[in-house]
Amino acid sequence: MERVAIIDASMTQFGRREGAWIVDLLAEAGIECLEDAGVAADDLDHLYVSNMTSGEFEGQTGVMNALVHDLGGMPAYTQRVDQTSASGGAGIYAAWQSIASGASDMTLLVGGEKMTHRSTAETTDIIASVTHPVEYKHGVTLPSFAGLTARHYLERFDASRESLGKVAVKNHRNGVDNPHAQFQKEVDLETILESPIVADPLRLYDFCPITDGSAALLFCPESVAREYTDTYAVVSGVDGATDTQVVHEREDPTVMGGVVESGKGAYEMSGYGPDDIDVAELHDMFTILEFLQMEGLGFAGQGEAWTLVEEGYTERDGELPTNTSGGLKSKGHPLGASGVAQGVEIYEQLVGEAGPRQVEADVGLCCNVGGFGNCVITTIMEAAQ
Amino acid sequence: MERVAIIDASMTQFGRREGAWIVDLLAEAGIECLEDAGVAADDLDHLYVSNMTSGEFEGQTGVMNALVHDLGGMPAYTQRVDQTSASGGAGIYAAWQSIASGASDMTLLVGGEKMTHRSTAETTDIIASVTHPVEYKHGVTLPSFAGLTARHYLERFDASRESLGKVAVKNHRNGVDNPHAQFQKEVDLETILESPIVADPLRLYDFCPITDGSAALLFCPESVAREYTDTYAVVSGVDGATDTQVVHEREDPTVMGGVVESGKGAYEMSGYGPDDIDVAELHDMFTILEFLQMEGLGFAGQGEAWTLVEEGYTERDGELPTNTSGGLKSKGHPLGASGVAQGVEIYEQLVGEAGPRQVEADVGLCCNVGGFGNCVITTIMEAAQ
Repeated sequence: MERVAIIDASMTQFGRREGAWIVDLLAEAGIECLEDAGVAADDLDHLYVSNMTSGEFEGQTGVMNALVHDLGGMPAYTQRVDQTSASGGAGIYAAWQSIASGASDMTLLVGGEKMTHRSTAETTDIIASVTHPVEYKHGVTLPSFAGLTARHYLERFDASRESLGKVAVKNHRNGVDNPHAQFQKEVDLETILESPIVADPLRLYDFCPITDGSAALLFCPESVAREYTDTYAVVSGVDGATDTQVVHEREDPTVMGGVVESGKGAYEMSGYGPDDIDVAELHDMFTILEFLQMEGLGFAGQGEAWTLVEEGYTERDGELPTNTSGGLKSKGHPLGASGVAQGVEIYEQLVGEAGPRQVEADVGLCCNVGGFGNCVITTIMEAAQ
Repeated sequence: MERVAIIDASMTQFGRREGAWIVDLLAEAGIECLEDAGVAADDLDHLYVSNMTSGEFEGQTGVMNALVHDLGGMPAYTQRVDQTSASGGAGIYAAWQSIASGASDMTLLVGGEKMTHRSTAETTDIIASVTHPVEYKHGVTLPSFAGLTARHYLERFDASRESLGKVAVKNHRNGVDNPHAQFQKEVDLETILESPIVADPLRLYDFCPITDGSAALLFCPESVAREYTDTYAVVSGVDGATDTQVVHEREDPTVMGGVVESGKGAYEMSGYGPDDIDVAELHDMFTILEFLQMEGLGFAGQGEAWTLVEEGYTERDGELPTNTSGGLKSKGHPLGASGVAQGVEIYEQLVGEAGPRQVEADVGLCCNVGGFGNCVITTIMEAAQ
């Protein structure tokens, strides 16, 4: 089967984008990606829009149709891809399938979300509606799941509260070098450990912010990629998997089944294993999730990720630079954009366009988590040879 | 490339389903489809959920994750497919791509919507949000576009108001023989022509109802289809295309560009043309749309569909039986379910399971229209040889 190439990537400034609506944000990243690649909008076959909540946040649906129209990309087929906070990763999977199946020879994926115009309470409630009604009706939210899981992890594995804080310190430090990040400032461990409690033991700085923004990736068959560029990435492996939607039904709260299964699938398809990964973007919506994904993807044994973080293993100059983009924690988390932006970072690392964040990498991985691990997509990319 | 088979189909009763929420409806059709086919839920690789508005109508998101969990289908990858009122057709396209790309060997598609618990005004407003903001802000709704288009068509082509009514008469007559249809009763032309005006010249009976319900299709590579059944259908062609999202920018309001382009793509992929189609399901959300699709798909010349309808060409015993299921008009239109239910009808016609609605058919077509033609998916299926 023909391999699928990614020939360009772009993203908007993440942060508070007043006056823009979702389609403005989507168009900004989409137009930049097409122009960079020298691809005319009306040469697109498929356009996927990763977006969870344009209807709930803005009262507007059909945004993919508005985007293809505004891009001048007609008559490209378009569809909205929703896999909650993993909508971006799901979009990568959909775009890959569109090329691999032969349905499309040029697919643009744009993920985005406009969130900051709503209150934190409204936003938290809209996002909490991803949980199963048997838990939702009791008032659970994703932060509450994260707090319970973190408490369990720290006690069971005798892990330090500081190790969670160090995830935030690292990702904030990386974000300083990402001009598109929402926060481009360092935060020290003391500030994190003394910030207000949100869901004990997690504090304000253990959580990603609420963010507006979008990101884009352009896909085509590898056989034609060099018509556009000599430096591109190839999707070596991609897979998605669910875990129980009802979180309290999971046998072990520290094992994210969707991470494990999607990782296995992506490794098998790519022929690579955990030791081959040079750089990773993990879904650090909450600091504790970075540990659980490191373990689920085989970068650390169960209960051991926290020690690797303490040792600097995931720093930019460590064995496995993780969240070099700043992660969701410091780059921001516009739901539908986040998985696409993970792909943007890995693409830029592989083609050598990561500027001051650049690490040495031939193979990279992104892991995008929907809900509280309800469905996860893992993607492995490699630099074109 | 391997051909994609559809090995089973099911749908719930369409109508008012009190006490059920969207996931109950999705599970009902999904479980029936799997049980009929003898496929265990945990043998699924992918599960697509076609649904436009669970968040807007019910305040619940992540319904695809709840469904895979409730079906016992873990760890199947799952994703929600949204292409407004063409979400079902988009789901067929996504399911086809999942098999054709090799990502999945067994894909269940379930489309559904729960709508009747909201008022007609709320429902109309939520659906109107599919239009582009430059028109939406002026208060346009899909029925208003339909009225304007119908007026133009009738005057320009000197067509009779009665011909529109005859679409409704035919589709209601077909619905009598569909036990899953919302309305299983005939309506005479006089009743239609004297019903209240909604958007002049269109009257109450020119419009589909508001409906709850779901429908399911099961896809696998044709090479393994006979392990499950000797009677199956094959997806011969499928394509999607957009038209201007801003309806008033279209050069000719009687030409639906998305219908024309998606039809061309599906014909080309299948090797069939309009004359090869034995049975068709068209998106008769408004009676006028049945004319525009007949013309856009090459079943009639421009401005001539109305005469074919007058002559009985689209009756069950005519040259091209159209909407043998009762169509959206009488079967009902639960947004995300409708495109899937079109596929269910064509599947049943091709495998000889359409009961009193059965016609002779080797090749069938469905056309699913998103918004007011903003994006359209056309699918051509044939009976297995």
